[in-house]
Amino acid sequence: MGKIYVKHLKRYGNLWIYKNEIVSDISRFSPGTVVKVYESKTNKFIGTGYINPKSTIAVRLLSFQDENIDESFLRFRIFQSIKYREEFLGLKETYRVIFSESDFLPGLIVDKYNFCLVIQILTAGMEQFKDVIIKILDEIFCPEVIILKNDSQSRLKEGLPIEKHIIKGELKQFPLIIEEDVKFLFDPLYGQKTGFFLDQRENRIFLKKLITAGQALDLFCYIGTWSIHMAKKGAVVKGIDSSQNAVELAMENAKINNLLERCKFVKADVFDYLKWEIKKNKKYDFIVVDPPAFVKSKAEKKDAIEGYLNLNSLAIKLLKKGGILVTSSCSQHISENEFYEIVKEAFLKNRKTGKVIYKGIQSKDHPILLSMPETAYLKCFIIKVFD
Amino acid sequence: MGKIYVKHLKRYGNLWIYKNEIVSDISRFSPGTVVKVYESKTNKFIGTGYINPKSTIAVRLLSFQDENIDESFLRFRIFQSIKYREEFLGLKETYRVIFSESDFLPGLIVDKYNFCLVIQILTAGMEQFKDVIIKILDEIFCPEVIILKNDSQSRLKEGLPIEKHIIKGELKQFPLIIEEDVKFLFDPLYGQKTGFFLDQRENRIFLKKLITAGQALDLFCYIGTWSIHMAKKGAVVKGIDSSQNAVELAMENAKINNLLERCKFVKADVFDYLKWEIKKNKKYDFIVVDPPAFVKSKAEKKDAIEGYLNLNSLAIKLLKKGGILVTSSCSQHISENEFYEIVKEAFLKNRKTGKVIYKGIQSKDHPILLSMPETAYLKCFIIKVFD
Repeated sequence: MGKIYVKHLKRYGNLWIYKNEIVSDISRFSPGTVVKVYESKTNKFIGTGYINPKSTIAVRLLSFQDENIDESFLRFRIFQSIKYREEFLGLKETYRVIFSESDFLPGLIVDKYNFCLVIQILTAGMEQFKDVIIKILDEIFCPEVIILKNDSQSRLKEGLPIEKHIIKGELKQFPLIIEEDVKFLFDPLYGQKTGFFLDQRENRIFLKKLITAGQALDLFCYIGTWSIHMAKKGAVVKGIDSSQNAVELAMENAKINNLLERCKFVKADVFDYLKWEIKKNKKYDFIVVDPPAFVKSKAEKKDAIEGYLNLNSLAIKLLKKGGILVTSSCSQHISENEFYEIVKEAFLKNRKTGKVIYKGIQSKDHPILLSMPETAYLKCFIIKVFD
Repeated sequence: MGKIYVKHLKRYGNLWIYKNEIVSDISRFSPGTVVKVYESKTNKFIGTGYINPKSTIAVRLLSFQDENIDESFLRFRIFQSIKYREEFLGLKETYRVIFSESDFLPGLIVDKYNFCLVIQILTAGMEQFKDVIIKILDEIFCPEVIILKNDSQSRLKEGLPIEKHIIKGELKQFPLIIEEDVKFLFDPLYGQKTGFFLDQRENRIFLKKLITAGQALDLFCYIGTWSIHMAKKGAVVKGIDSSQNAVELAMENAKINNLLERCKFVKADVFDYLKWEIKKNKKYDFIVVDPPAFVKSKAEKKDAIEGYLNLNSLAIKLLKKGGILVTSSCSQHISENEFYEIVKEAFLKNRKTGKVIYKGIQSKDHPILLSMPETAYLKCFIIKVFD
C-alpha cells in the first residue's frame, strides 16, 4: 500500500488520475500497487485505487472512501453490480455482470451467459485480485463453466500475459442465448471479445420493430445476430464477415431458427464486397453497418474517421430510396457527436439526407457512469433515407 | 417569384440559408415570397424556398428541386409526412402530422389529436399557404375540430398577428389521449403549445418500466402526464406547476384514471418549492425535471445554462440514494452534449454521481432531419444515483 499526492482535481466522480496530475514520485511502485490518493495542497483524501507508473492513466480509483481493497470490499462491489442488473433491470440468465469503471471495478469485465461465466481482466491492478474475484463469482453463480478470456492486447502494456482458458468445468456445448423470439449459439472461448455482443441487444430489439419483408445486408455480421432478427421479421438477409468461423456459426444460427431459406452468409472483405455490389448496382431495403472498433487509441483517430466515412458512404450507395441504414461505432475515442457528423457527411457525399429514427447507446447492463463520459462507447443510429 | 444568388454552400440537405450567405439584394422582397436559389459563381441550382429579408435565416428551402410551390406540391409533402407516420411508424389516432423542417415544410406544425387537428404556422412564407394547407388537411382527415394555434411569439418577428381560434367545428369536449394504460384530457385551445407534449411520449413509456412503489416528484408537471404514468405503476406522486389551469387538469386526469389517492398537484413556483422541500429534508425515489424551454435564442443561452444547473442541482438534493432522476431540456440552442455536462456538473456540485440508464430524444413523429442537427431539440436523460 502506498500514499500519493496529486494536484487539485476538479473532477469528482472520475476514477482516472493521469500521470501528469501526480505530484509524488511514483516510479517506485510496482504495477498494480494499491494506493491512497491525497490532494497535495490541502492533504484532503481523494480515494483508494491502484497504480501503474507506466500507464498514462496512472491511477484508477476503486473508491472515494479510505478503505482496504480486500475480499469483503470486492464482494460488496460485485453484489452492487449484480443487484443493479437483477433487481433493478430485471435481468437474469444472461447479462453483463460487471462493466469495469461503470461499476467502480476498473479493469474487470464479467459476462454471464446462462451456465457459462466469462471473465476479462485488463489491468495489473485487477490481476492481483484474480483468484479472489473468481472465488466470489463462483460462490454467487455456481456456473458450470468459467472462462478466463484474457486476450486483450491492452494487457501487454500492463506487463500481463495474453491467455485464454477454461478455469472451471468443460465447454461441452456452446451457450444458447434467447433474445426475444430468436436464439443464438456462440463460442465464448474463441469468439470475439467475450463471445457475444450483449451491448447491441437493445438496439437489435428496437430495429426489429422497423423490419418487414425486403432485402437486407448485414456488414461485419459476425455470428449473425442482426441478420437472424431481420430474417425473423421476413427480410431476406445477406451477412458479410471476413472470419470463416463467424460465417459458419451464423449459418448454424440461421439453421436453429429455421431461417436458412432467408439467410446467406459470405466470407469476404466488407469493403471489397461493397464495391463489387455497387458495380452490380444492387439495392437494399435495410443495411446494418456494425464494424469492430476502428480506433483503439487517440493516435489512430484520424484514420478511423476516414474508415467510418468511407464505409458508411459505400453502404449508403446500396440503399434504396426510403431504405434504412443502421450504423454503429463502438470506438470509445469517437464521440456520439463526431460519429453523427461522419454519418451526415457520408450521406451528403452521396447527396442524400434522411430522418434519424433512433439514437441508441450500449445496453443498460453496460451502464454509463455519469461522471465519466469515457464509459459511453457505443453509438447506434437508425436512419431512413429521404425518398 | 424571385431569383437569388448565394455564395458557395457546402451544406447539402440543410434548408436554411443565412442572410450573410446571400449575394443578391434581397431588400426588395416582401416577407414570404417564393424564391429560386442559385449559386452565384457556378449558376448551379440550389433549391426552391421562401424568403424573409428581415430574418437572419433569410431563406427556408422547401425543395432541392426547381419546382412550383402550389397545392399539388403541398399535397405531396403532406402525404409524404402522413405516410411516414401511418405506414412506417404505425401511428393512427394521435400523432404529430407535420414537423416543420424535418418534413421539408419549414414553419408548419400540425398535431392530430383524435378528432381534433391543431395547426401552427410560424413564418410569413408558410402563412400565405394557410388556406390551401387547411383545405388539404381537412380533405385527408375530415376532423371534427380544427384549431389554428398561431400564438407563438416568433410570429411577431415575421410580421404576423398572434391569434388562436377554432376554424372548424366546436370544441364540445377536450380530446382524450390514450397512452399505454392511462388516459389524458387536455386543452388544445388554451393549453401550452398545441396542448399536449407528444414529443416526450416514448420517454414517458420508457420511464414507466423503471417505476415501482415509492415517492415521486414531478416538476413543471403541466397536466400531469409523467405523474399519472408513475402513479399507475404504484408511486405516490406530487406534481408542481405554476399554472392553476394545468394543476386542475392534472387533478382531472388523476381522477379519470382512478389515481386520485396516489396523486397530489400543487400550484407553486418550482424553484421556491424545491428550496422549501430541501429545508424540510424531504427525500424522493423518483424526480422528473421537465421544464419549458429556458432558452429561445442564442443570446439567452448563458442564463439558461445557469437555470438548468440550478434546477437540477436542487432536484438532486431531494433524491434518495439509488433514486432516479429524469431530466429534460427542450431548448434547441442547448446541445445534448452541453446538457449532459450541465447535469454532470449538477451531480458533482452535490458530490454525487450515477448511472446513465437512458438517453432519450424526441418521439419518432418529431423526426430529426439528419442533415439539420438543429431539428434535434429534446434531450431526456434518466440517471440512477449511485448508492
